[in-house]
Amino acid sequence: MTFVYAFDHEHPRPPMEMKDLLGGKGANLAEMTSVLKLPVPPGFTISTDACREYMKGGWPAGLDEEVAGHRARLEATMGKVLGDPTDPLLVSVRSGAKFSMPGMMDTVLNLGLNDQSVKGLATQTSDERFANDSYRRFIQMYGKIVLGIPGEAFDEVFEAKRDACGAGSDAEIPAEILAEVIDAYKAIVAKHTGKPFPQDPVEQLNGAIEAVFKSWDSPRAKAYRQRERIPDDLGTAVNVQTMVFGNRDDNSGTGVGFTRNPATGEPGAYGDFLINAQGEDVVAGIRNTLPLSALRDTMPAVYDELMEIFERLEAHYRDMLDTEFTIEQGKLWMLQTRVGKRTGAAALRIAVALTKDPKIQLTKEEAVQRVSPEHLDQVLHPQFEKTDKPVLATGLAASPGAGVGKVYFDADAAAEAANRGEKVILARQETSPEDVHGMMVAEAILTSRGGLVSHAAVVARGWGKPAVVGAESLDIGARSFRAADGTVVNEGDVISVDGTNGKVYLGEVPLAEGAVPEEFGIVLGWADEIRQGKLAVRANADTGEDAARAREFGAEGIGLCRTEHMFLGERLPIVRRMILADQPDEEAAALEELRVAQRADFKEVLEAMDGLPVTVRLLDPPLHEFLPSVEELLVADAKGELSPDGQGLLAAARKWQEQNPMLGTRGVRLGIIKDGLYRMQVRALMQAATELKREGKNPIIEIMIPLVVTYPELALCRQWVEEEVQAVCAEEEVEVDVIIGTMIETPRAAICADEIAEAADFFSFGTNDLTQMTFGFSRDDVAPILEAYLEQGLLKVDPFESIDVRGVGELVRMGCERGRATNPKLKLGVCGEHGGDPDSIAFFYEQGLDYVSCSPFRVPIARLAAARSVLAASGPDSTA
Amino acid sequence: MTFVYAFDHEHPRPPMEMKDLLGGKGANLAEMTSVLKLPVPPGFTISTDACREYMKGGWPAGLDEEVAGHRARLEATMGKVLGDPTDPLLVSVRSGAKFSMPGMMDTVLNLGLNDQSVKGLATQTSDERFANDSYRRFIQMYGKIVLGIPGEAFDEVFEAKRDACGAGSDAEIPAEILAEVIDAYKAIVAKHTGKPFPQDPVEQLNGAIEAVFKSWDSPRAKAYRQRERIPDDLGTAVNVQTMVFGNRDDNSGTGVGFTRNPATGEPGAYGDFLINAQGEDVVAGIRNTLPLSALRDTMPAVYDELMEIFERLEAHYRDMLDTEFTIEQGKLWMLQTRVGKRTGAAALRIAVALTKDPKIQLTKEEAVQRVSPEHLDQVLHPQFEKTDKPVLATGLAASPGAGVGKVYFDADAAAEAANRGEKVILARQETSPEDVHGMMVAEAILTSRGGLVSHAAVVARGWGKPAVVGAESLDIGARSFRAADGTVVNEGDVISVDGTNGKVYLGEVPLAEGAVPEEFGIVLGWADEIRQGKLAVRANADTGEDAARAREFGAEGIGLCRTEHMFLGERLPIVRRMILADQPDEEAAALEELRVAQRADFKEVLEAMDGLPVTVRLLDPPLHEFLPSVEELLVADAKGELSPDGQGLLAAARKWQEQNPMLGTRGVRLGIIKDGLYRMQVRALMQAATELKREGKNPIIEIMIPLVVTYPELALCRQWVEEEVQAVCAEEEVEVDVIIGTMIETPRAAICADEIAEAADFFSFGTNDLTQMTFGFSRDDVAPILEAYLEQGLLKVDPFESIDVRGVGELVRMGCERGRATNPKLKLGVCGEHGGDPDSIAFFYEQGLDYVSCSPFRVPIARLAAARSVLAASGPDSTA
Repeated sequence: MTFVYAFDHEHPRPPMEMKDLLGGKGANLAEMTSVLKLPVPPGFTISTDACREYMKGGWPAGLDEEVAGHRARLEATMGKVLGDPTDPLLVSVRSGAKFSMPGMMDTVLNLGLNDQSVKGLATQTSDERFANDSYRRFIQMYGKIVLGIPGEAFDEVFEAKRDACGAGSDAEIPAEILAEVIDAYKAIVAKHTGKPFPQDPVEQLNGAIEAVFKSWDSPRAKAYRQRERIPDDLGTAVNVQTMVFGNRDDNSGTGVGFTRNPATGEPGAYGDFLINAQGEDVVAGIRNTLPLSALRDTMPAVYDELMEIFERLEAHYRDMLDTEFTIEQGKLWMLQTRVGKRTGAAALRIAVALTKDPKIQLTKEEAVQRVSPEHLDQVLHPQFEKTDKPVLATGLAASPGAGVGKVYFDADAAAEAANRGEKVILARQETSPEDVHGMMVAEAILTSRGGLVSHAAVVARGWGKPAVVGAESLDIGARSFRAADGTVVNEGDVISVDGTNGKVYLGEVPLAEGAVPEEFGIVLGWADEIRQGKLAVRANADTGEDAARAREFGAEGIGLCRTEHMFLGERLPIVRRMILADQPDEEAAALEELRVAQRADFKEVLEAMDGLPVTVRLLDPPLHEFLPSVEELLVADAKGELSPDGQGLLAAARKWQEQNPMLGTRGVRLGIIKDGLYRMQVRALMQAATELKREGKNPIIEIMIPLVVTYPELALCRQWVEEEVQAVCAEEEVEVDVIIGTMIETPRAAICADEIAEAADFFSFGTNDLTQMTFGFSRDDVAPILEAYLEQGLLKVDPFESIDVRGVGELVRMGCERGRATNPKLKLGVCGEHGGDPDSIAFFYEQGLDYVSCSPFRVPIARLAAARSVLAASGPDSTA
Repeated sequence: MTFVYAFDHEHPRPPMEMKDLLGGKGANLAEMTSVLKLPVPPGFTISTDACREYMKGGWPAGLDEEVAGHRARLEATMGKVLGDPTDPLLVSVRSGAKFSMPGMMDTVLNLGLNDQSVKGLATQTSDERFANDSYRRFIQMYGKIVLGIPGEAFDEVFEAKRDACGAGSDAEIPAEILAEVIDAYKAIVAKHTGKPFPQDPVEQLNGAIEAVFKSWDSPRAKAYRQRERIPDDLGTAVNVQTMVFGNRDDNSGTGVGFTRNPATGEPGAYGDFLINAQGEDVVAGIRNTLPLSALRDTMPAVYDELMEIFERLEAHYRDMLDTEFTIEQGKLWMLQTRVGKRTGAAALRIAVALTKDPKIQLTKEEAVQRVSPEHLDQVLHPQFEKTDKPVLATGLAASPGAGVGKVYFDADAAAEAANRGEKVILARQETSPEDVHGMMVAEAILTSRGGLVSHAAVVARGWGKPAVVGAESLDIGARSFRAADGTVVNEGDVISVDGTNGKVYLGEVPLAEGAVPEEFGIVLGWADEIRQGKLAVRANADTGEDAARAREFGAEGIGLCRTEHMFLGERLPIVRRMILADQPDEEAAALEELRVAQRADFKEVLEAMDGLPVTVRLLDPPLHEFLPSVEELLVADAKGELSPDGQGLLAAARKWQEQNPMLGTRGVRLGIIKDGLYRMQVRALMQAATELKREGKNPIIEIMIPLVVTYPELALCRQWVEEEVQAVCAEEEVEVDVIIGTMIETPRAAICADEIAEAADFFSFGTNDLTQMTFGFSRDDVAPILEAYLEQGLLKVDPFESIDVRGVGELVRMGCERGRATNPKLKLGVCGEHGGDPDSIAFFYEQGLDYVSCSPFRVPIARLAAARSVLAASGPDSTA
């Protein structure tokens, strides 16, 4: 096994594609050196293979020899020797994993200096001050990064010396004072490590390399990998590169440059630089940097060369790049390049601009791959500006966007305040359907309990409203909440809720500017072309209003129209009459009242989606959701405050109360024991549809039975549905297209999909419930468990956020395969929360689903993700 | 396709093995005729093929012709013609499905009589009274069974005529009065059907055959099939047989005979007969029958012939037989035979006796197959005598056996009454761990809510205590309950609870006599030989007492030792201190107290199972089970009755309250967030084990982690367990055998069994929870759903009673296959309720499980069922 490659190694493939082996930084250095022949200081990369070997069994056998060989070659090339007392070679050592990763060792500069070679450097450069400054920087960086000495120890000494000698800036400290600093630094090292600062350059180099290896497993790096779903066994590469000095003189400098503006996407180079400085000075923000454009005036030749390099890089990488460069005595050196991070708006603008750039001519497919779902998400939701307001709590980022308002603790109070014209935030321990009117008027929703698919989270995402849920450190009461730090926030106080990062701030945080750029529509249009006929995107929408919004966002139908809301609000008394009915005729009368009301509801939805399919799910929730809670009623009763009607409600609530409602009398089970219910719903729906049809509209209906676990359940309900459909069509003398299907949301339904498919025209995977049952995770209860599991690495991803491919995914795969085995025409879709998650969408596309369905606000993201899934499946992505 | 076979048809196989085609009755008639050459009245069987064809598309084409051919052959054999006005052939028509089945058409006798042929019969027999009596019986039976006329219509006329003519018994009614009865009967038929009574014998015969076909789908037959898990598509055969007349004269008669006593199993023929009667008279109980032994005196030759036939039948069938016979004018005819139903005690005695019978020499394997699990169940549990006491309610038969006592409605009252020496029944809406002390002292347990795996059901079965659960028609209050009929039963009233059939009676029902016969041990010994090394049987036992009992019942270890009980009772205050602890040291102190106490608990269990493996499951239930209910606390609070301590409990109960506890913080999840808990349990266990080891005992320990869904969860806990095991063994300087495994009780665990098996030495399938999650059925909530589903045929079997092979079973199969794929040494067992269900045991054996584990009282049944599974898998069962 070869462990080390020089930057100019002739790899069999373009090095930029070899990030697995060389890491991102090393791959790009090799690309610039061996392919683009750009001015890159020579060096070599110790590959990730070496790191993996190190993690397995310590320092790899043979590595010393390889490094020595490459060091010798570098010394020969440069005509200098590491640690040479007269003319030393100096190198930098940097980590470089496949993915850029905070928490890993960054950079050690000036390696190779010691008490002897510093003198050689002074002689060679005729600049003792420069040499001493380089050495003290080296000791400081090496001490901090490799030897683990707190940075403050060095900073204190340095500041004291600077102040003592009266220097206005670092650059004014004279050489002799720097020599004192060096001595003081060496004393710090000796004190902290019990050993003198290493003088042997080979020992220095090996120490730095090992520090990089070790930093791969630093807690911060590990936490980052976990969050970003980066595997732990990739390992990092180490880059050893000849030093060049931007701090040599005033004809030297260093900078960071983007080939385009990463914040806005506007064309033209963008960046900062400093004269007479080393890289860290730019980043540290100690000195005020100059804009890159100023380089044109100070060093016009260098500027022109840099601009030409930028153009070559963009044409070569076919993307916007982020670079680091150094100018040493008028000579430009490229130290690093990579594809640049950018804002959502910039991503859209750059993608479209690159298609028009005659030198690049990015294809539409490539352009779509340059824009990530996260980019779109950013563009779609308001964001807070950076703030230093106190953070009251951090919960789960349940629905993106930013909301500011006065906090209220119950739905009625919130609704009243909103009526008065206030902007409000609704804060509750958790929400239920009874809170919906308060949620509707809120700028944002905050709960202290519940996970990413809790009621609050699902409803908020459905409305594109910011929400933070499960902020467990908050003790939310009836008129105030208390934060972990003791802050008490009372009703009416202003807070800011960031649903994008889960943070809750005290006071008002200003919103960042941001409109959706026009390129949004262009890129999504390309995405639609790519996924056309391969993976449709629908929305989950329950009302005419939602349906209209979904259509604006590009939904091609409704994948899930829940009918629960049609039983709430002013309908609730009727529903309760139905539940409390002693006699069949009382129940029938209540159902008839509901039918009349729901017919109008259905008409609105169908009208808004005219000509597109609408999947209507018959009633799913358990009946106790339409009754007050037993707890509330019992407490009222204990206080002697319960009316005779209340006593009736208590008896009913008791009767329908369940230990585990998730696994109780809901879905088709309710339909079967209350057998007029589904017929009523179908009748109302079909009356709405026939009415529209007569008005010249084209309703396309898919009726969906929830929570089926056996074939006979579905066959029975299908028969009822067919009878009602035929009856209404006959009565109204109008034909309407209807297909009948089921949700696949229990493990058994997936396993028995072959049987069930015989009574189904379509399957819609309800991956929320499927995840709950496959894991045995109640979405309302396991937030603290998920938090602990993610933290401890027991789970890599929240399975409610992105589908668990190994477990839940296998059931989805089984459901698809088996369902289509007995019913090849079976239409397949998904309507769980995963329908809007890009990774999950890729998985669903691989399984052959016909469509995904998500909340209206996620539709653009799903359209993009669907297109990217199609591209990913059709061949390897040729870009980074 | 041939539809009809004569009894003397030369079948390619023994007809007794052809019940699929010929039905049970037809197969045995053919066996007696064509193989044993016994005196059977000739006839033919219309096969089940014909019935299936009829169900598909009405009267089968070609059936008329075949029946006509066989009728002609029968007429030729008998020298008589159906409907002949001078000397008519008469036949009986009977249904005969593969399995004996109430609800199907039974028998039409004397078919072929009409207004003309009745005269011929009178002439031929010189007995007008006999002829008229035969005709009126035929009209009555045909009218009732084939034409669907209510029987009372005929009974009223008959009784009126009999009374009017002053006849003391039916036999005394003179011929002319019977002629009047015939006219009246024909009028009834005409009135009810609008048509005269059919005179054409072919029409009569086809009518009777079609009535048999139709009766296959009668509601009663369907309900019976569903209950007995008989497929709906088997269909029934129809037997047409020449009539012989037991009512011809006093040298005629009819009877029912068993080759041995079916109640006790004692040797010697057993039965009843009547002189001068037709078969229905014996069954109807109108006349007092004579014991079979009396036949020896009245007709010694016939008796001897019958005894010889009984011997031949037993030797041929190698089992006890049930027969029907008729004597016509001194000639014996065998009308039917089948393997006889018997009590549990008789089954055991007969099985053993047949092995010793020199003519039969039944093998041990056959003997084991002659005893069903239901037989053992009967022998093991006390049974009520037949009773006419009022039935207050019928619930689910959750735990077999009979209990009588004074009813109490809370555990404390029940315990106090038991202390006073009363026999008590505990009645609750549902039970929880807090009721355990009341359940323990009760003769039987009764609940109005919950299903077959509710707390009450599981605990009662564990203790072998009778229980009826989910008796929903009872309104159970605090000091009384009200039955559906309005009866109010108060505290202290005596009731009787039959856990075998689910009935609850008012008052005391006497217990039937019954001791376990000595053959019990012999048969189980054979069963053990057969299953030796193939399928072990363990028990679920939580205490030393349970373990000792399980061992007496033949358990070969403990498959599930729950540790919950070690946290209840006097430990509860310590557990609550652990839950309420603010500081780690408070929590640690509480855990330490628990460790000391639990060490003793573990020692008792391990001592009782010395030398046999004990699977200890680390704590599984959610913490709120150790706290009072939120509802109770809230009510107390509303009444101002909550102490400051109570307020603390309320806060904790709120904190740990869950929407769906089944899918919440329990099992390994709890272990991981309360990370000292499992270590404490393992430490206590290992200290008990090392102590025993030093005392010369041999503890064999299997530590089981519950509710695992991922490999990392198990790997983490395994590490903790290993550390504690090694620490204790090192401290105590003793080695103890320990293996570590997990329950497979979530769908994900089964799917990911390959990964999980890498950290497991064994899997134990928790099929209760696996069923709950696979179906999405909460065992506490779906009792009413299951009832409706079973009633409507949407489910064939309660999946908590017998494993759902198609859905849950597939996950078990997957778990076994995948687990053994990565860990070929993986030990496999099951510890859910299904471990004691015979059908499920057969399935588990097919999947290659090493053991099943069930409640101690089910162990004998499981031993037998395991042996029968081994035999069933090793080859087809050659007997009925």
